Amino acid sequence: MKTQIINGVSLPNIPWQDKPADCKDVIWRYDANPIIPRDQLPTSNSIFNSAVVPYESEKGKFAGVFRVDDKCRNMELHAGFSKDGIHWDINPDRIVFEQAEKSTEEVNQWGYGYDPRVCFIEDRFWVTWCNAYGWKPTIGVAYTFDFKTFYQCENAFLPFNRNGVLFPRKINGKYVMFSRPSDSGHTPFGDMFISQSPDMKYWGEHRHVMGPLRAWESKKIGAGPIPIETSEGWLCFYHGVLESCNGFVYSFSACILDKDEPWKVKYRCAEYLLSPQKIYECVGDVQNVTFPCATLVDADTGRIAIYYGCADTCVSMAFTTVDDVVDYVKSHSSV
Amino acid sequence: MKTQIINGVSLPNIPWQDKPADCKDVIWRYDANPIIPRDQLPTSNSIFNSAVVPYESEKGKFAGVFRVDDKCRNMELHAGFSKDGIHWDINPDRIVFEQAEKSTEEVNQWGYGYDPRVCFIEDRFWVTWCNAYGWKPTIGVAYTFDFKTFYQCENAFLPFNRNGVLFPRKINGKYVMFSRPSDSGHTPFGDMFISQSPDMKYWGEHRHVMGPLRAWESKKIGAGPIPIETSEGWLCFYHGVLESCNGFVYSFSACILDKDEPWKVKYRCAEYLLSPQKIYECVGDVQNVTFPCATLVDADTGRIAIYYGCADTCVSMAFTTVDDVVDYVKSHSSV
Amino acid sequence: MKTQIINGVSLPNIPWQDKPADCKDVIWRYDANPIIPRDQLPTSNSIFNSAVVPYESEKGKFAGVFRVDDKCRNMELHAGFSKDGIHWDINPDRIVFEQAEKSTEEVNQWGYGYDPRVCFIEDRFWVTWCNAYGWKPTIGVAYTFDFKTFYQCENAFLPFNRNGVLFPRKINGKYVMFSRPSDSGHTPFGDMFISQSPDMKYWGEHRHVMGPLRAWESKKIGAGPIPIETSEGWLCFYHGVLESCNGFVYSFSACILDKDEPWKVKYRCAEYLLSPQKIYECVGDVQNVTFPCATLVDADTGRIAIYYGCADTCVSMAFTTVDDVVDYVKSHSSV
Amino acid sequence: MKTQIINGVSLPNIPWQDKPADCKDVIWRYDANPIIPRDQLPTSNSIFNSAVVPYESEKGKFAGVFRVDDKCRNMELHAGFSKDGIHWDINPDRIVFEQAEKSTEEVNQWGYGYDPRVCFIEDRFWVTWCNAYGWKPTIGVAYTFDFKTFYQCENAFLPFNRNGVLFPRKINGKYVMFSRPSDSGHTPFGDMFISQSPDMKYWGEHRHVMGPLRAWESKKIGAGPIPIETSEGWLCFYHGVLESCNGFVYSFSACILDKDEPWKVKYRCAEYLLSPQKIYECVGDVQNVTFPCATLVDADTGRIAIYYGCADTCVSMAFTTVDDVVDYVKSHSSV
Amino acid sequence: MKTQIINGVSLPNIPWQDKPADCKDVIWRYDANPIIPRDQLPTSNSIFNSAVVPYESEKGKFAGVFRVDDKCRNMELHAGFSKDGIHWDINPDRIVFEQAEKSTEEVNQWGYGYDPRVCFIEDRFWVTWCNAYGWKPTIGVAYTFDFKTFYQCENAFLPFNRNGVLFPRKINGKYVMFSRPSDSGHTPFGDMFISQSPDMKYWGEHRHVMGPLRAWESKKIGAGPIPIETSEGWLCFYHGVLESCNGFVYSFSACILDKDEPWKVKYRCAEYLLSPQKIYECVGDVQNVTFPCATLVDADTGRIAIYYGCADTCVSMAFTTVDDVVDYVKSHSSV
Amino acid sequence: MKTQIINGVSLPNIPWQDKPADCKDVIWRYDANPIIPRDQLPTSNSIFNSAVVPYESEKGKFAGVFRVDDKCRNMELHAGFSKDGIHWDINPDRIVFEQAEKSTEEVNQWGYGYDPRVCFIEDRFWVTWCNAYGWKPTIGVAYTFDFKTFYQCENAFLPFNRNGVLFPRKINGKYVMFSRPSDSGHTPFGDMFISQSPDMKYWGEHRHVMGPLRAWESKKIGAGPIPIETSEGWLCFYHGVLESCNGFVYSFSACILDKDEPWKVKYRCAEYLLSPQKIYECVGDVQNVTFPCATLVDADTGRIAIYYGCADTCVSMAFTTVDDVVDYVKSHSSV
Repeated sequence: MKTQIINGVSLPNIPWQDKPADCKDVIWRYDANPIIPRDQLPTSNSIFNSAVVPYESEKGKFAGVFRVDDKCRNMELHAGFSKDGIHWDINPDRIVFEQAEKSTEEVNQWGYGYDPRVCFIEDRFWVTWCNAYGWKPTIGVAYTFDFKTFYQCENAFLPFNRNGVLFPRKINGKYVMFSRPSDSGHTPFGDMFISQSPDMKYWGEHRHVMGPLRAWESKKIGAGPIPIETSEGWLCFYHGVLESCNGFVYSFSACILDKDEPWKVKYRCAEYLLSPQKIYECVGDVQNVTFPCATLVDADTGRIAIYYGCADTCVSMAFTTVDDVVDYVKSHSSV
Repeated sequence: MKTQIINGVSLPNIPWQDKPADCKDVIWRYDANPIIPRDQLPTSNSIFNSAVVPYESEKGKFAGVFRVDDKCRNMELHAGFSKDGIHWDINPDRIVFEQAEKSTEEVNQWGYGYDPRVCFIEDRFWVTWCNAYGWKPTIGVAYTFDFKTFYQCENAFLPFNRNGVLFPRKINGKYVMFSRPSDSGHTPFGDMFISQSPDMKYWGEHRHVMGPLRAWESKKIGAGPIPIETSEGWLCFYHGVLESCNGFVYSFSACILDKDEPWKVKYRCAEYLLSPQKIYECVGDVQNVTFPCATLVDADTGRIAIYYGCADTCVSMAFTTVDDVVDYVKSHSSV
Repeated sequence: MKTQIINGVSLPNIPWQDKPADCKDVIWRYDANPIIPRDQLPTSNSIFNSAVVPYESEKGKFAGVFRVDDKCRNMELHAGFSKDGIHWDINPDRIVFEQAEKSTEEVNQWGYGYDPRVCFIEDRFWVTWCNAYGWKPTIGVAYTFDFKTFYQCENAFLPFNRNGVLFPRKINGKYVMFSRPSDSGHTPFGDMFISQSPDMKYWGEHRHVMGPLRAWESKKIGAGPIPIETSEGWLCFYHGVLESCNGFVYSFSACILDKDEPWKVKYRCAEYLLSPQKIYECVGDVQNVTFPCATLVDADTGRIAIYYGCADTCVSMAFTTVDDVVDYVKSHSSV
Repeated sequence: MKTQIINGVSLPNIPWQDKPADCKDVIWRYDANPIIPRDQLPTSNSIFNSAVVPYESEKGKFAGVFRVDDKCRNMELHAGFSKDGIHWDINPDRIVFEQAEKSTEEVNQWGYGYDPRVCFIEDRFWVTWCNAYGWKPTIGVAYTFDFKTFYQCENAFLPFNRNGVLFPRKINGKYVMFSRPSDSGHTPFGDMFISQSPDMKYWGEHRHVMGPLRAWESKKIGAGPIPIETSEGWLCFYHGVLESCNGFVYSFSACILDKDEPWKVKYRCAEYLLSPQKIYECVGDVQNVTFPCATLVDADTGRIAIYYGCADTCVSMAFTTVDDVVDYVKSHSSV
Repeated sequence: MKTQIINGVSLPNIPWQDKPADCKDVIWRYDANPIIPRDQLPTSNSIFNSAVVPYESEKGKFAGVFRVDDKCRNMELHAGFSKDGIHWDINPDRIVFEQAEKSTEEVNQWGYGYDPRVCFIEDRFWVTWCNAYGWKPTIGVAYTFDFKTFYQCENAFLPFNRNGVLFPRKINGKYVMFSRPSDSGHTPFGDMFISQSPDMKYWGEHRHVMGPLRAWESKKIGAGPIPIETSEGWLCFYHGVLESCNGFVYSFSACILDKDEPWKVKYRCAEYLLSPQKIYECVGDVQNVTFPCATLVDADTGRIAIYYGCADTCVSMAFTTVDDVVDYVKSHSSV
Repeated sequence: MKTQIINGVSLPNIPWQDKPADCKDVIWRYDANPIIPRDQLPTSNSIFNSAVVPYESEKGKFAGVFRVDDKCRNMELHAGFSKDGIHWDINPDRIVFEQAEKSTEEVNQWGYGYDPRVCFIEDRFWVTWCNAYGWKPTIGVAYTFDFKTFYQCENAFLPFNRNGVLFPRKINGKYVMFSRPSDSGHTPFGDMFISQSPDMKYWGEHRHVMGPLRAWESKKIGAGPIPIETSEGWLCFYHGVLESCNGFVYSFSACILDKDEPWKVKYRCAEYLLSPQKIYECVGDVQNVTFPCATLVDADTGRIAIYYGCADTCVSMAFTTVDDVVDYVKSHSSV
């Protein structure tokens, strides 16, 4: 492996398929996609844009937080476990959060929650998601030790914001989170910012990371899975949107950010690495969407399994390796 | 049957399939959908959003009025007959209306007609549809005794209006009709109203029934098939629209209205009962549309066959029973 | 007088100023405009778009219903009297309607009311205005005998509608009302329709009258004061809107409609007769608005006093004669 | 004085005019408005939306930060002084900020700055304004001791945000700031939020205060001058916007917030207290705007001088007293 | 053959399939569509809207210019050759234009190029396409003798314009080109114009040909392949767009223009001849698109092979004959 | 005079007022503005955006083409003469064009004409204006020798275009014209282009000059009066538009272009030189508009009289000198 995974985890049972012989791409799809169908739960209209992590990885287990829209089309978060990262046992009931502090009781009355990310930092799993505050979208924050009890904290920011994604360790002694200021609708713009906090409660030192650039990402971009710390810097998968005459097309690609000043973009892939081309990505509640929210990374082999939402309807998986993606990003960088 | 059909008809040969063993839903699709393909007529671009009724039911026959868009994409109404409610013999020529009164000659110059509903009241079949008046959409009204000659009356309302649906009997001595005030485009709003008339010509006593409520119906709603009178009240299937970043998603559900004051909503299902999930519902001239315009109801068994338009392209069928749907609506009611 | 006023009233004390010597226009403004300032009432933000009629004309008195927006910017209706038609004693409290029928109690919960018109038919003064039904605009209907007690009837139509204007007598045995189907916002379109009713409760036989035509009225039009019956037909002042890059410009002009089939336009002035050009018409809560809602007409002299709202802020007056305006409309007709 | 000013300042030479005899309003304008014309500086296109404070009040002096748009229509901040609060000596050169910390150098490259507020807390004057961060609006923060040197800190929040207004003392040990999440254009929505910070650098515990409510404020609202601490709670003037068919109308009113939990609204005036009605408020670069950014308050007499921007063109003044406004707000409260 | 091809070419090896027995349509699809998949090139996201011509037809060869969007979604033009008109050898590198004149160097810096048409006139193959001039779309012009070296000339027109299509010979001594004035976005309007030029450099005598007419083409239209000269006049295939609530639907049909004054429409088919109905036409980067850019015509048999882009993703083929299409257009003409 | 007027005319009786003592601006208004009121003609709603030139200057006479909107709000062109350049005798009848060539008869059916510019080249006065072609705006071209008979030529370009302004002499043997590609509405974008023609009939070699840049001109720009040839290059006044929340604000400034390659901008004033600040510029049919269409220039003294439309309602005048404006543009240049 040319590029080293820093602070990684050994995942010998990471879900994996080798790159098909005829595949010219950097990322290749799992041949049995989607892995989570829309109707896996009796009440689910759709299960997509979800986040998974190694959990008790020594036992080869995985856990996750899943976006489940029910048949009212309420947007809810459900926890789940898996033994292989492919077949998931998702709790049919949504997560009901405990309040981390008394003061949050009032502000954290549940409205909706979607597009969760899960990030292990130090001693717990932090969950960030697009959270309703007075029905206005901002970034909800909670933590869990066991994916059974979840403690909800203060929202990180004022509305309107989405795609809140934590870095997996403090940088310069502060928590660091991506977010993507939005509006209250189907936001027709979107740059990625970074904010910092000494305590995951008060946030500041906001820094602009990057905005729309190439055609595939010309409308808006947003952070995807938790950044992967590598010897080259933070490897970040992110989604980008092109607006055709018939709506948004969500593809995703990757960039590499400076280790200590992660708002500085070292490399940024000019091309998308995966765009909606399969029927389960092009046809569903929202046409033409591939939306990554999590990766599993095996520190030993550099293997990466990417979990991405398809057509706002179901969850699929794709594979790559750290070397494959870092080399391609560096050799096809826009910056 | 817990819930009784009032003023129903025996339809021993109602098209029917039992609920598949693994089906968790209240409504289940006919396994040979669509039943009417887009190109059944030589001139048809699409045949969808159509209404059928028992006709000479003693002979087990059915009749209907069909929305046929031709290859200019003109929107026309065609009559048709069927022996089994599944295979339809649709007249290749559009309905050419006679005028019920001299005074309507001038106003009823044909422009377009779409999304018909057919309702037997007392001695005749009434047809209501979205009718062009000076190319502005309002609710056209006509009646027929034989589905060969149709007598067009005055439009019920001023433009802009759609989804005009008659109740199958007078209430408090007056005809009662749903309608959904609209605008001249792809209306981005929509509440259901009820209007009353002593004579099907002059309408008034307009009452608001309900508006958008849950996420699946957050953009607009509109009445679907003719209300089914039951011991619990009027069982009404209606469509609701959610606006994603890539357009409208048409699902449908049901509510139960007060027998004597049908603008009062007794129960209203919080969830959709059917949403576009099959390829013939998600791909077509308009993606993601399930649009019910008629039901056949067997008073004896409580069986219901729902006829719904798919992707503005073809007609499909789904089944349920009065008990199934009434129980579910009552137990999952938003009001 | 070439053109006779039919069914007119002698108004010897009609407010009047002769046409200034240098005035080239058909309509000329009162030189002491505005006659009702915005702050005539302690609670008034603005008093505009109001309707006046002769009242106990034998005593030379006048009465009216005034649009008064208060300082919450609620839109209310207030009654008022005048001895000279210029100075008005407006009730500081809004009109609180009695219900004409028990059945209207439920539907007529007050929301807002604006742009009233007042029309004497047979034995009472009918008031129509843009009335909130579930906060959606439609045409409210009420009657009064004394401008103290007002009896509210059923709304004439379904939402969304504005500019409801009654004809001052039944035609072919039916009440006849202009209206202008709208949307729920600042409607960017608008044709004038006529509807008919045997009883002022159930309405039908809707007929299209006319739509936007010339540049000054290219966005939308709407009926203004009560039609004036003349030997040439119904003389109707109506407003028209042009959309510049900086908003709507409301001017008004006149047309002459067929006596028995008033949806048939005999003559329609190609030009506006008055457009916002004075500071009190161009500057106010809404720039560039002249919006006529009433006329006083002296049958003997053909004198016409037009009451029009200015900039949605105050009420002004302008004058013409039946001959002046009928001649001009006929000689400058678009149809 | 019924209502006491808490933590106020004696301002014997507060600019003042008694309420005119015939004035029925709670707030009355200075009869020599505007006090700062658009072209007071050689380079100024307009001087409006500005904030003033007592400065060396023992010497009866005043200081302020002024929004000056130059003739490129760049939006800049200029400092100024006054001996009487009416005639202002504004520095022709814009404020060039020093950086409070090394880390802010990079993020605080100047773009634009507008709608400043100035607030004395403990030992310094804090300035908050709408600050460009990568040309996206957010809330800039700086402090000064002498209105000559200004030290710019971190932006308080992520874009998009406007109307950042500090409370004049810490509450529960934390700085408290109003803000109004926006979009990047002429924001068509807007609720007021409160955020809290231990150190003016990291912000959190965001609380929704209130959103649009009555017609005059139905489009959006935003905090105005620095809250005035009174025995009834925090007296806050705020602007509200109504959207007519010809654009936005900016009026302002007042509310009273809980002393310890200032996101809780105790009283909120249902009416505006001042709306654009004078020519200098209705005609200018932006029609129909009254936009308060500061008040001077004499603790002894309860006199209040309100400084407000007019038509985005010039600065005017209006007067009221604490008792007048608190009584009116309490007796006309929407909540 | 009733209708003669004028100035045609013998194409004995024109790609061809006879009309299927059960086909009721004038145009029938190639049963092995699409012929060029989206990923034929390693760098291609999609290959669609492309133009082919006979090349060295005596050797039965074909050449073409292809729209290839790469994975940045840059829009590029690639040249290619084929032996059978079905299997294409497309150059993986985009066309890099030589400049026809020194003066064009400055203006012709490459930005993007899409939707090419290729037209042989006199001694060379002219290529017109939608060309970026300062990232604004207008009509680029170039010529080639060998499909290896391309000489770029001046843009024909000012921005904003698309669908530039040359006539295959001078008319009245001047080059004649269709174009479709547009805006800089997904143009919501569009009429076809003709312009004339003595020298392919200076253009004038602009004539309006036709605009949107029937429902299928109610939003906008645009010229498709190079006009085919027939004894009836110029046979032109063109696309038309209908806007449903879920986006644009691109179908195509044909018209016949006057030989000497080609802006005069002799016949215009009221119906579309092909609309998106196959999965590869309805699902892709842009749903519901059939977009013809070229035809091969065998002068001897009247056979026509139409090359059309599908869902902005791939290239397909369809067949008809001159007689079939001319007869149908004449017998179903809107004009 | 530092800056020499090239190819200028002596205009000893150029309308003139010296710069007021207290005027800090480069351009100062005529103290008796507006010079042409809206109602100067009996049929005129407004007279604005008009162009004047020296005519028989040896006799000190002037001629012009005036935009006159009539009371239908049709947009017409009228000719006129003046002895002093201030008081104008405008023909009450619109210009009825002769056709310069037979071939233009068909295309030049009159629709509307507005915002004329007049330019003397070689032997005749050329008039360019925004001309309706099938009601779509493009640039009309005509010439006259006597301002009595006008010969209309081919439109210069395809729709949609406005602000066509000729250079007063051929450059490199070709006529040169500014234009500003637009859309069919109130164009929300706009860059200035230059096109060239050997014969005023066929146009090509289109070059981008400049686009929106500073805040005052951030929405769109457009050429104003005929360029003035000076020793520094072509001095061009042009308008720029800023979009506030209440509409467009039209100001104007100046730039200096290269003599031989006039698409190359040598200097461009960062500031506007005149913005709408007077009541006749801020209040009228369109608020906040100053729109220059012509200048008179005295070659001897460098005096410039600028004629500009105000609020789309009337015509006013302002003054400057070549030295004043050239120095200011050079010393405040954005480029």
